[in-house]
Amino acid sequence: IETNQEAETRSHFQTAMAMSILKLRNSPALRSAASSARIGVLSRAFSKLSEGTDITSAAPGVSLQKARSWDEGVSSKFSTTPLSDIFKGKKVVIFGLPGAYTGVCSQQHVPSYKSHMDKFKAKGIDSIICVSVNDPYTINGWAEKIGAKDAIEFYGDFDGKFHKSLGLDKDLSAALLGPRSERWSAYVEDGKVKAVNVEEAPSDFKVTGAEVILGQI
Amino acid sequence: IETNQEAETRSHFQTAMAMSILKLRNSPALRSAASSARIGVLSRAFSKLSEGTDITSAAPGVSLQKARSWDEGVSSKFSTTPLSDIFKGKKVVIFGLPGAYTGVCSQQHVPSYKSHMDKFKAKGIDSIICVSVNDPYTINGWAEKIGAKDAIEFYGDFDGKFHKSLGLDKDLSAALLGPRSERWSAYVEDGKVKAVNVEEAPSDFKVTGAEVILGQI
Repeated sequence: IETNQEAETRSHFQTAMAMSILKLRNSPALRSAASSARIGVLSRAFSKLSEGTDITSAAPGVSLQKARSWDEGVSSKFSTTPLSDIFKGKKVVIFGLPGAYTGVCSQQHVPSYKSHMDKFKAKGIDSIICVSVNDPYTINGWAEKIGAKDAIEFYGDFDGKFHKSLGLDKDLSAALLGPRSERWSAYVEDGKVKAVNVEEAPSDFKVTGAEVILGQI
Repeated sequence: IETNQEAETRSHFQTAMAMSILKLRNSPALRSAASSARIGVLSRAFSKLSEGTDITSAAPGVSLQKARSWDEGVSSKFSTTPLSDIFKGKKVVIFGLPGAYTGVCSQQHVPSYKSHMDKFKAKGIDSIICVSVNDPYTINGWAEKIGAKDAIEFYGDFDGKFHKSLGLDKDLSAALLGPRSERWSAYVEDGKVKAVNVEEAPSDFKVTGAEVILGQI
């Protein structure tokens, strides 16, 4: 039996799918279908991330896993990276997405950040981080394939603990992905969240691109 | 706190790791360490797969997800493949592995089958299938990277239901992989299991290669 949340996710992906197949992004009928499908999402619980949140305290004891090849994983003794190592004393732009090898992520989300690297550097950003509920070997393979590994630091959240702690987890089983995350972005200074953006649906790409967060730094 | 099973898995990966790094596969000291680390594993519960099992009945209602790109996933409306479509009336060799982008899988397990395709065909095998607890887009990206997609059919088991139903699931969190599977292989005729092989530890590659199962057909 499908829960309301599953039905909602399925509805979003099916709307996105229909738009993609029919290439009718400007069709009023489809836009209207998309709006009505989104009514449920507007009332969903907000993520626990908001301006002023200390991201390390919000996810106590949680680590991420730096993207690496399997062989590097073995030589690193499967080490993980505590959040404090990532955020302490640094200006960080971090964005999360539903998964390596999914559409919007490969075609728009990562390229958006990659193409604005200079602007982020000009604003004194120390690191641009992409995180996803994937194992670190998969996200590494994907980062290499899309040619983004030099510009962006990739981390896996293989057990989803980071996203769950921040209330950014999302079941995407309807898209054959299982427990994953919202599509989101945040600007974090020395661990303190200064700005956070979460898409209404993970198939959207409206508020989590590089341009929006550049205006928030 | 680490459970015994996690400690065991970690111990296996660390042994494999040590062997891999030191390239001392023939060192008696390391082999002895490996044997003692495996004592616990020998007593683990057997998988539910055995000679004569009807694989479709053993996993009722379970589907797999054919490897495909995200765009193909969208156009397919995220369709899944019932086990009966895979096994009914066919001679199938199927093997499972801990994950796309992991070491033994990329370097030995898949290549072993790929290089023996002619021998499988000569024995009248209709399909060689590789399955893994991964989403279908990730396994597709990996299959393309290792150049095996023409010879072998790849399927994802994104929610692990197939492996859980068959008692072949395994927690590989110690290797930053989360809930995955044993390394295994089976020869299945019209849905009936004729031979099944499961490695003692997923880091092993002793009984699940193409040569062993060729001798069992």
